[in-house]
Amino acid sequence: MSIRVGIVGYGNLGRGMEHAIAQNADMELRCILTRREPASIKPSSGSVRVLNIGEARNLVDEIDVMVLCGGSATDLPEQTPEFARYFNVVDSFDTHANIPEHFKKVDAAAKSGGKTAIISAGWDPGLFSLNRMIAEAVLPCGSSYTFWGKGVSQGHSDAIRRITGVADAKQYTIPMQSALEAARSGGNPQLSTREKHKRECFVVAVAGADRGAIEREIVTMPNYFADYDTAVHFISAEELAKNHSAMPHGGFVIRSGKTGSGNENGQVVEFALKLDSNPEFTASVITACARAAYRFNTEGMTGCKTIFDIPAAYLSPETADELLKKYL
Amino acid sequence: MSIRVGIVGYGNLGRGMEHAIAQNADMELRCILTRREPASIKPSSGSVRVLNIGEARNLVDEIDVMVLCGGSATDLPEQTPEFARYFNVVDSFDTHANIPEHFKKVDAAAKSGGKTAIISAGWDPGLFSLNRMIAEAVLPCGSSYTFWGKGVSQGHSDAIRRITGVADAKQYTIPMQSALEAARSGGNPQLSTREKHKRECFVVAVAGADRGAIEREIVTMPNYFADYDTAVHFISAEELAKNHSAMPHGGFVIRSGKTGSGNENGQVVEFALKLDSNPEFTASVITACARAAYRFNTEGMTGCKTIFDIPAAYLSPETADELLKKYL
Repeated sequence: MSIRVGIVGYGNLGRGMEHAIAQNADMELRCILTRREPASIKPSSGSVRVLNIGEARNLVDEIDVMVLCGGSATDLPEQTPEFARYFNVVDSFDTHANIPEHFKKVDAAAKSGGKTAIISAGWDPGLFSLNRMIAEAVLPCGSSYTFWGKGVSQGHSDAIRRITGVADAKQYTIPMQSALEAARSGGNPQLSTREKHKRECFVVAVAGADRGAIEREIVTMPNYFADYDTAVHFISAEELAKNHSAMPHGGFVIRSGKTGSGNENGQVVEFALKLDSNPEFTASVITACARAAYRFNTEGMTGCKTIFDIPAAYLSPETADELLKKYL
Repeated sequence: MSIRVGIVGYGNLGRGMEHAIAQNADMELRCILTRREPASIKPSSGSVRVLNIGEARNLVDEIDVMVLCGGSATDLPEQTPEFARYFNVVDSFDTHANIPEHFKKVDAAAKSGGKTAIISAGWDPGLFSLNRMIAEAVLPCGSSYTFWGKGVSQGHSDAIRRITGVADAKQYTIPMQSALEAARSGGNPQLSTREKHKRECFVVAVAGADRGAIEREIVTMPNYFADYDTAVHFISAEELAKNHSAMPHGGFVIRSGKTGSGNENGQVVEFALKLDSNPEFTASVITACARAAYRFNTEGMTGCKTIFDIPAAYLSPETADELLKKYL
């Protein structure tokens, strides 16, 4: 019997979920819930039902896990606790500072309904967090580094778009090769913000706009750009659409530890991602976590969980015997 | 209260355990057990008791976890099931093909005594297995690659030492940069044995030995060398001692997956280790697993476990709240 999954929200992440579920023989997409007019949604898999989000309560008997694909700013803080009363749920809540508060609300809701929730599934938070945590548990003496990119930062792209005279923009966060090599060297270097990442901006200017002024406003923008080396390229709307519509991302988590009687031996642990599609990879992680949420719940483990609470075996469709033989 | 640990066997791994435990404030080394004359063992930490292995049964009330540091060929198949009746245990059993059988024996023993055992802790098996398993659960469509090195292979070094005319030898397994890059490219290449690794041998010949014959015997040795490009260097005993006494190792686990409606997006997950000391890193992983074994047992979860069964939080000394704040 398949694990029956529902998707709430049909943006980039929701579409990624549809493809990810299709790659897993033990899972089945049963419906897509949306705040939009259901008839306006055209799922890739033609047969799946699209319903208004208001109909969720009628689905409690036919959905094993609801995957919440909304945004962390306003959707998930409300939706995840609400849905966790009635459904096992997975979300990819990624506002790091608010995770403890989100966890508490979702935990209370899930426990009240006897359901299991997994929050902050994805890669950061998610697989990056897992690797940071394990590497520090294994190597308590040392330094940790996280690098992001090369990838599109939605927040930085939005900040550029708000500048007067900018019609559209895409911003790439790029890790500095020299900093990556320093982190891997075992020398436990202190690396400044500027040393770790640079930023590259592709900007479509409104006709007649002052490009010099736009560039100055970008590179001096506090928090977003001022602490980085930033390159600004003005391009046409056509070029932006043609060359900068993809959503690549990735990054590196590096733990540089020391062991031995006098901490004389360097031990470097690195986890790296190189993703052509950020939302599709996030959806792939969520899909494995949906399997884990279902298993937790069938075993009576309710409440809110994170990637730190999941035995890896719960992420896999294979049996314990197969895992020992194939992977250990 | 500290987790009280005992070490069984005081070779490279046992010595690494001593240093690893010293890095963890919540753990305490209580004794070293040996088959040798206890007075012949000089622990780094002068105060720790050294006892004959025959005295183990007298320690059941003062040891929370016994760490078994013997070899996988003959020590652990006997010792782990034996000790698991009376102690929570961790071993680093690494004969991959025999893991299922070892698991069964240890599981029965641990359950009979109400104890918890974690087997095959280390990096391969261990952290490499964990990353292989998770990456395939997340990306079911794709290819997986494991590369080892640069590092010393004990088995290959031993095989060279058995050749007539060889006084001593060290063999390094070296991953091919071209194969690593091909695996990371997202092209899912098929890579032959020869394409993935090369082998480099440092050999001390007996005076008057036929070096040409030794080299031919090495490079044509079936299974060990014939399928690889192998370089043989003859050096002096002094040079071997000076430049080849360290125990570096490491490697790479790469999952090259595809996602999207037509599997059009490449997603590459990589986990890499660069270790100055193989036994000390293995000991560091075992130490984190010893913490997990203790927690499993205090929560009533008995029997044999592997890295696939351990929620990552159990490896860390930090509380669940701290983990959410610091790492997620």
